[in-house]
Amino acid sequence: MPNPTAAMLVIGDEILSGRTRDSNMHHLAGELVKVGIDLKEVRVVPDEAPAIVSALRALSEAHDNVFTSGGIGPTHDDITADCVAEAFGRNIDVRPDARKLLEDAYGARGVEVTEARLRMARIPDDAVLIENPVSTAPGFTLENVHVMAGVPAVFEAMVASVLPGLTGGTPLLSQTWRVMRPEGDIAGPLRALSEAYTDLSFGSYPFQMNGVFGSNVVVRGTDGARVDAAMTELQEVFPDAGA
Amino acid sequence: MPNPTAAMLVIGDEILSGRTRDSNMHHLAGELVKVGIDLKEVRVVPDEAPAIVSALRALSEAHDNVFTSGGIGPTHDDITADCVAEAFGRNIDVRPDARKLLEDAYGARGVEVTEARLRMARIPDDAVLIENPVSTAPGFTLENVHVMAGVPAVFEAMVASVLPGLTGGTPLLSQTWRVMRPEGDIAGPLRALSEAYTDLSFGSYPFQMNGVFGSNVVVRGTDGARVDAAMTELQEVFPDAGA
Repeated sequence: MPNPTAAMLVIGDEILSGRTRDSNMHHLAGELVKVGIDLKEVRVVPDEAPAIVSALRALSEAHDNVFTSGGIGPTHDDITADCVAEAFGRNIDVRPDARKLLEDAYGARGVEVTEARLRMARIPDDAVLIENPVSTAPGFTLENVHVMAGVPAVFEAMVASVLPGLTGGTPLLSQTWRVMRPEGDIAGPLRALSEAYTDLSFGSYPFQMNGVFGSNVVVRGTDGARVDAAMTELQEVFPDAGA
Repeated sequence: MPNPTAAMLVIGDEILSGRTRDSNMHHLAGELVKVGIDLKEVRVVPDEAPAIVSALRALSEAHDNVFTSGGIGPTHDDITADCVAEAFGRNIDVRPDARKLLEDAYGARGVEVTEARLRMARIPDDAVLIENPVSTAPGFTLENVHVMAGVPAVFEAMVASVLPGLTGGTPLLSQTWRVMRPEGDIAGPLRALSEAYTDLSFGSYPFQMNGVFGSNVVVRGTDGARVDAAMTELQEVFPDAGA
């Protein structure tokens, strides 16, 4: 059975304007590999409702899981929750369970729950809250979409609480062999290997070190014995590696 | 007149599996802002022809410029050029101009132009080559799509040679004001400002420093006097900033 698939939607003008370097994509990619969910697509869109809604619908239809990052804070440009409600035809308002979370946490610190902060309790009907152990304001899951914060510490904590509840697959295993030859020298044998092991994937990533061209060859697959066998053949063809 | 728009397509299993952290998106975003081309969307797709072809078509139709990154090397998983040819209904083969580039460069270093290396001379009909001053194998422009390498040094060099030939717009100006208050405190005044200056965009990016919550407020627009005016109002409302 093939692994479940996933897509990610990164929401925010700050990424597209070059102000902020996204790190959530790399984090999520690494976590999904471990649980056997195949990340098949990532999109980055600005803080504009039509772009967000249409990406949500497209990704939600095409994949088993969708993870969003960004746009759930208290300011006027935080429109992700409203867009998710629109994409799935749900009502959205300040929800008592989310409101109570905020009131308890801010109350304990003597901070007023302003109207702006209450925006973070706007949750679509039928959504299940995702815990935020860092700064309280929750994320939520609606249908197959998991809506999470853009701040990396919060995003990572939310990913950690969502993933155990999802149906995983067979984790992808990978082995890397460093060959001190340029890609052009190894492409032929690598193609032959990829045709002999059609259940595995072979990637080659060129690098330059002290003026010498080399390639990291990565063999990926879900069957450890097959990955081992391909790696052994690869090392026989290029024994001069790892230097 | 609104600025020209752009989209980026990042191609590669290595990004989606978490093996490699993409840096080309952040670089391109920063360069496009300088020349007044608005980056409106980024997609990341695996090394799979149907996904690449369909993303190329969608992005090319929706935006003035499309920039791709990755999949133009010599190995079997480098299929970007073939996918671009398919997306635009062009023939593709080893092209004499690209072949000569490779033969001259490799010849000068006494390196054989293998069949694998010749893959890098596969260029669709009608495409214009993009110079690669780092490692010779060229990128190319076909229709409104600029096809570039994934290796960051090469990608950046190709961006530098493509951008001067494009129609730019009004560069986006931005100013940042650091407010040592949590987002929930500033959201109200910020919304009022954004309603008073509808030609500008206001972003707020929370941070935590030594246990204190703060927000970087970014005012963006193409009219410097308007950005100045909004920034002055912002500083009147939150004079306690910059600490």
